[in-house]
Amino acid sequence: MELLQKIAQTVVQVKEKRPLVHHITNYVTANDCANITLAIGASPVMASDLAEAEDMVGLASSLVLNIGTLNPQSVAAMLAAGKKAISREIPIIFDPVGAGATPYRTATARQIISEVKPTVIRGNMSEIKTLLGLEGQTKGVDSVADETDGAGIAQTLANRLNCVVAITGKTDIIADPTRLCRIDNGHPQLANVTGTGCMATSLVGSCCGSVEDVFVGTVAGITLMGIAGELAQRTLKPGEGIGTFRIRLFDAISLMTEEAIRQEGKLS
Amino acid sequence: MELLQKIAQTVVQVKEKRPLVHHITNYVTANDCANITLAIGASPVMASDLAEAEDMVGLASSLVLNIGTLNPQSVAAMLAAGKKAISREIPIIFDPVGAGATPYRTATARQIISEVKPTVIRGNMSEIKTLLGLEGQTKGVDSVADETDGAGIAQTLANRLNCVVAITGKTDIIADPTRLCRIDNGHPQLANVTGTGCMATSLVGSCCGSVEDVFVGTVAGITLMGIAGELAQRTLKPGEGIGTFRIRLFDAISLMTEEAIRQEGKLS
Amino acid sequence: MELLQKIAQTVVQVKEKRPLVHHITNYVTANDCANITLAIGASPVMASDLAEAEDMVGLASSLVLNIGTLNPQSVAAMLAAGKKAISREIPIIFDPVGAGATPYRTATARQIISEVKPTVIRGNMSEIKTLLGLEGQTKGVDSVADETDGAGIAQTLANRLNCVVAITGKTDIIADPTRLCRIDNGHPQLANVTGTGCMATSLVGSCCGSVEDVFVGTVAGITLMGIAGELAQRTLKPGEGIGTFRIRLFDAISLMTEEAIRQEGKLS
Repeated sequence: MELLQKIAQTVVQVKEKRPLVHHITNYVTANDCANITLAIGASPVMASDLAEAEDMVGLASSLVLNIGTLNPQSVAAMLAAGKKAISREIPIIFDPVGAGATPYRTATARQIISEVKPTVIRGNMSEIKTLLGLEGQTKGVDSVADETDGAGIAQTLANRLNCVVAITGKTDIIADPTRLCRIDNGHPQLANVTGTGCMATSLVGSCCGSVEDVFVGTVAGITLMGIAGELAQRTLKPGEGIGTFRIRLFDAISLMTEEAIRQEGKLS
Repeated sequence: MELLQKIAQTVVQVKEKRPLVHHITNYVTANDCANITLAIGASPVMASDLAEAEDMVGLASSLVLNIGTLNPQSVAAMLAAGKKAISREIPIIFDPVGAGATPYRTATARQIISEVKPTVIRGNMSEIKTLLGLEGQTKGVDSVADETDGAGIAQTLANRLNCVVAITGKTDIIADPTRLCRIDNGHPQLANVTGTGCMATSLVGSCCGSVEDVFVGTVAGITLMGIAGELAQRTLKPGEGIGTFRIRLFDAISLMTEEAIRQEGKLS
Repeated sequence: MELLQKIAQTVVQVKEKRPLVHHITNYVTANDCANITLAIGASPVMASDLAEAEDMVGLASSLVLNIGTLNPQSVAAMLAAGKKAISREIPIIFDPVGAGATPYRTATARQIISEVKPTVIRGNMSEIKTLLGLEGQTKGVDSVADETDGAGIAQTLANRLNCVVAITGKTDIIADPTRLCRIDNGHPQLANVTGTGCMATSLVGSCCGSVEDVFVGTVAGITLMGIAGELAQRTLKPGEGIGTFRIRLFDAISLMTEEAIRQEGKLS
């Protein structure tokens, strides 16, 4: 079956399974992440204290870790939750927000990767390069087929960590050790709303909690956000700006159909 | 005076008194809780540190405690705030989010009930059953007239704790030791927006901070959320989904009138 | 060049420079602050842990400190970030949310002013009076030309602290040691949305991170919020309430033009 068809079916599978997606995430976009998870038909839970991190993972179908507003307490909870998720063999989706911006973020992102071994990592090019050691003080430590080539970077990290890597940007690139997919959906306005990256990660968590193949789940989550951006933009009337665009993203996800994905999806 | 008429008048009383509703709540839905409190005409304040929990209660007309993203610091603040609220004899509305999901939540919910003695407890059936000891390891510890009967469960807990208990769901059930009310308002879409339970609790806090009878205040807050869900749904045009529905909830609360409540309220 | 013309040009300058505005702020309105910062064309970052507070300031063009949900950890981060901002000579915008409401807030606000020496302070009349020592136990410690006169209060505090002081209300008053401006934009509905004060502070941070003259940047940020309130209100159709109004605020900021500011700005 062709990949786009599998992606399209994912929206049905999420609604059928209604997976519980546990988030340890930031306080800036937590509400958006919860609402986008509900919009696609999954069930979000947010709990960030060490006292219950493992117990909550025990109920979940997938785990989303996002270091947007990290602190020592939330990082401790992420590590404990991640280890529990490993033991339960549920997908762990890691969003290394701001890796490279501060030494604390870079070090924490590396610690999470080392100890939690994420199933999927979703970030922008700068964050993913930081994880590969291609930026800042660690620049040049690693060899990559072509540093300017997103596919090479995604594949190198995917191979090294044996996981799925999603680099989101104008063209999104998803790689696992054996597969590669480019997604040409999306709209520049998505960059003008806070948390669209976090929300994409939550959609990946929702899809990976619903299907067996985490590469398919990752492509599905990223594609959904991109298509939602395009659909939201199309609805805008004169006088409507970024506030309305943001609301229409949730509308688009909640109304998403298999047909819309087959029609709008631009995978290659 | 009939109950529905008292409920309808509550929206006038909230706007007249403009009570300060102090919240110690979760970071996922805090913004929504603040905005719904403002929308009905009350004044929200959110402060979750022990260093000021009691002082802030000193200014408030009611106190909302919500354990959605609890941690040891916020729980300490809740306990201190609750004791201050007892001494000031202002209503304490407790939302035991996720009680039963993890041992930490269940234990904390019971500690708050034991030490703070809430005036009102609002939860879903699963959370309320947990508080009664009807689920999980504690199942069967308590005797209830009919475990499958929401009214019996609400009345049993209300009697035991001498408080108002609100179980929200398809039909909402509100009980105090002597009274019982069913509310048949609401819409299934409310379950697809995060925080509609938290927001209902904030509306209960706003109403209970404005009227003498906390049973009336509780029925009013729950009814308001249900009617808002119905009104929001009615406004949706083709192509509008959950994002727009969520915004219209705030619209509906801010435009709510006595007449709308008398016309739409389905109490029995 | 006339002040209004400078204000109008600010929206162009923000989009050209796209300053990084670092926020240490509250969890209630952090999402709104991030989105309004993006809407005007600046780039927000929220990071509130001491472990990275200084490093993040190292990347920023301005720093926003907001004590809406303060705690000892975030205050420590604010103090460290503020000192780093002083050393880098970037503008520090301080929002003393709730100063006067509790002793903890009042003491923390004074500590921040003493140790961080904000470039701009934006608050409501009650908060600014508290900072001057005109309310509560400290009432009467200071002499002010005319306590009932907002301009006198703003100028007194601006002179004492050698900073810009913005008092927002029906008429906004902005003072620095040598200049004074009144802004008569805005709409009463702004008071019915949580965080419009915080968002105004973020807009001030965005503008002060983009222009040399922080008095101009402050007047620009406050004027933008006021005009957005008026434009948002004008778009409302029957049946649209506070939820829609709030979304239209973001629309208005994202669509703001030099022409709109020249046409709508009411400075004196």
